[in-house]
Amino acid sequence: MIADLRELAALTSDANGAQRVAWTPVWAKARDWYRCKLADLPVDVEQDQAGNLWATLRGASPRALIMGSHLDSVPNGGWLDGCLGVLAGLEVLRRIAGQGVPPLTVRLVDWADEEGARFGRSLFGSSAVAGRLNLEWVSRLSDTDGVRLPDAVRAFGVDVATAEQAHRQIADASAYLEMHIEQGPVLESLGLPLGAVIGCYGIERHQLVFSGVAAHAGGFPMHLRHDAFLAAARFALEVREIAKRHGGVGTNGRVRNMPDIPTAVAGECAITLDMRHIDAAQLEAMLNEARAVSERIAGEEGVSVAWRTIYQSPPQLFHPHLVDLCDEAIREVNAGASHRMPSGPGHDAIEMAWAGVPTVMLFVQSRRGLSHNKDEDTPIAHLELAVRAFDRLADKAMAWLAEGGT
Amino acid sequence: MIADLRELAALTSDANGAQRVAWTPVWAKARDWYRCKLADLPVDVEQDQAGNLWATLRGASPRALIMGSHLDSVPNGGWLDGCLGVLAGLEVLRRIAGQGVPPLTVRLVDWADEEGARFGRSLFGSSAVAGRLNLEWVSRLSDTDGVRLPDAVRAFGVDVATAEQAHRQIADASAYLEMHIEQGPVLESLGLPLGAVIGCYGIERHQLVFSGVAAHAGGFPMHLRHDAFLAAARFALEVREIAKRHGGVGTNGRVRNMPDIPTAVAGECAITLDMRHIDAAQLEAMLNEARAVSERIAGEEGVSVAWRTIYQSPPQLFHPHLVDLCDEAIREVNAGASHRMPSGPGHDAIEMAWAGVPTVMLFVQSRRGLSHNKDEDTPIAHLELAVRAFDRLADKAMAWLAEGGT
Repeated sequence: MIADLRELAALTSDANGAQRVAWTPVWAKARDWYRCKLADLPVDVEQDQAGNLWATLRGASPRALIMGSHLDSVPNGGWLDGCLGVLAGLEVLRRIAGQGVPPLTVRLVDWADEEGARFGRSLFGSSAVAGRLNLEWVSRLSDTDGVRLPDAVRAFGVDVATAEQAHRQIADASAYLEMHIEQGPVLESLGLPLGAVIGCYGIERHQLVFSGVAAHAGGFPMHLRHDAFLAAARFALEVREIAKRHGGVGTNGRVRNMPDIPTAVAGECAITLDMRHIDAAQLEAMLNEARAVSERIAGEEGVSVAWRTIYQSPPQLFHPHLVDLCDEAIREVNAGASHRMPSGPGHDAIEMAWAGVPTVMLFVQSRRGLSHNKDEDTPIAHLELAVRAFDRLADKAMAWLAEGGT
Repeated sequence: MIADLRELAALTSDANGAQRVAWTPVWAKARDWYRCKLADLPVDVEQDQAGNLWATLRGASPRALIMGSHLDSVPNGGWLDGCLGVLAGLEVLRRIAGQGVPPLTVRLVDWADEEGARFGRSLFGSSAVAGRLNLEWVSRLSDTDGVRLPDAVRAFGVDVATAEQAHRQIADASAYLEMHIEQGPVLESLGLPLGAVIGCYGIERHQLVFSGVAAHAGGFPMHLRHDAFLAAARFALEVREIAKRHGGVGTNGRVRNMPDIPTAVAGECAITLDMRHIDAAQLEAMLNEARAVSERIAGEEGVSVAWRTIYQSPPQLFHPHLVDLCDEAIREVNAGASHRMPSGPGHDAIEMAWAGVPTVMLFVQSRRGLSHNKDEDTPIAHLELAVRAFDRLADKAMAWLAEGGT
């Protein structure tokens, strides 16, 4: 697995990090490489209507144990986020395939566009399979060059209108397992390599556009300005306070002035808001406060503000028995030490849990909590522990399912 | 002149406004159209080494009265900023040429890249003629697509290394006159169509890069973040207070996060700063306060900040006698009413004044003080008054120069 990860990184990264952004040529290159790896195994490979790539090892029963994650990355991303889970799954698939026909069908899925880096809509492929892609929203999205999402995905054989037909992929799904780096500093702060994930934060992701009046940077006195960027700046600082107050997180990751030049006061400023919390009521309160504060600031600055939803996902708790099995698997490989924790980042696993598939995730420590940049890293010893624990988890889940677990 | 302005707007605008950004095909189209207009006059036309386009009407003396402005616009700009001055000059040139050989040589210049919209360096052509282009800085600039300035201008016949040879264009210059829209709300607030400009604000334009730590928007607790965008947001709000305190202006017009996606905390944020004041000491104090505040905020946010100068210009006062003549010309066409005022925006006239050419500008009212956007406008009656006043100013200046004025 480690060798596979290094090979993929060498093939799809530059000096700034991984460049496997979904719906781009580098992503296609990553998948071509992955298909070659799958070709060594007795599996059927197919791309579904939403662009997800499935490898299926037929078992004695059509009931399926699914493992999955995503090969796509953010721009200038790391060597582990997403692809670790796919290649860990590949390693487990190799082991199971080497032991003959398994009692259950075992499938490995590479989800399409987990990151949403180009169009701001994450979990594209897994949402489609779960049947909650929201075709209307998705069809309206475009990237920073103005390319529309439906046009971009068409080049990869995906028709947005029929993407949700991929739902049939989980007709026989009995469980879903996903391994991922933590992307946060919690395990490192506890001195632990691995954790069992109890569920994922709810997410509210929106775009706000503040509209003021564009004006010449030299000719317009300060007291007569309606600077859209300053309204957005005040909003971002308030979002931090809201998140702190509620014990959640809030981020304004993308900002764009219009016009975007040094000599003009911004007439418009578009800014993204991403807020998360494990508790639905707290998340709702955070969103309400953010809306109120955006309107108060707009009033004070003499600008207007418009909200548009990019993505929403309620907090999602994972399957209690699978969490127990994950915790057990971790203790077996790590001298009895494990940790149960929520996930801040969203994952494709949320979509599987939402769709009613019994789901769990296994986290491995992230150095300094970093991800979504080239310095993302995890000690090799932890990656080895993680794939061993994930392999045990797969076995435990299969045994549980074979005994009729649901 | 009004007909010319409308023709040019129709040719080089879209639904979002004028698109005559320097060093682009639309700008080239505007100049081709302008060359056709010049072809009707007994003038020599040449492009100098800095890309400025000169039309010369030979007079009895080689001593030259120069009129000028710029055809280039910001993206999504208005129908008057820049081109009004060129086409007013064209109208005056037509009148003078129609009266036979003038006592002095009369020249009309279309300066290259006044706006600096693509590379952030305004007054490119006039700075080169003034001999203060700063080749080292300019050669390092690139646009948002990463195209370097030297490469972009080469396609228009300009070699950055030899651009300052255009200095010879002002060897015989005796006076420089420029008409422009105010780009501010002062004349409108006074109920006046025209003003005589006493000088231009000094300008300090810089780029700041705040560097924190990029991190996943979900996985990283608020108290452990080093969000570069929030540091930039705090800085922008402080710049407003600094400008207000000193009676100057301060603008953060361009902002860029890295990575620039909804699901990541910004590891870097680049933001431009443009500060202006008519008093050099006040401008220096503003800059020093901005530097100090950027460092204080960086310290408090656990990020670093680096400054890079884009452009600097000290306050520049115009020629007292030419200001008098301009004021006189305005009073003659406007029932005795005029106004002497500084200019907030920078203009090519600053470069001529800096180079020692006696200089003055004439301002015409801007509706709502707007410019650098498609809603920029001026009542037609004001434009007609302005070109009549400018014509008189040219005559007065020529008479003064013919009598030996300097």
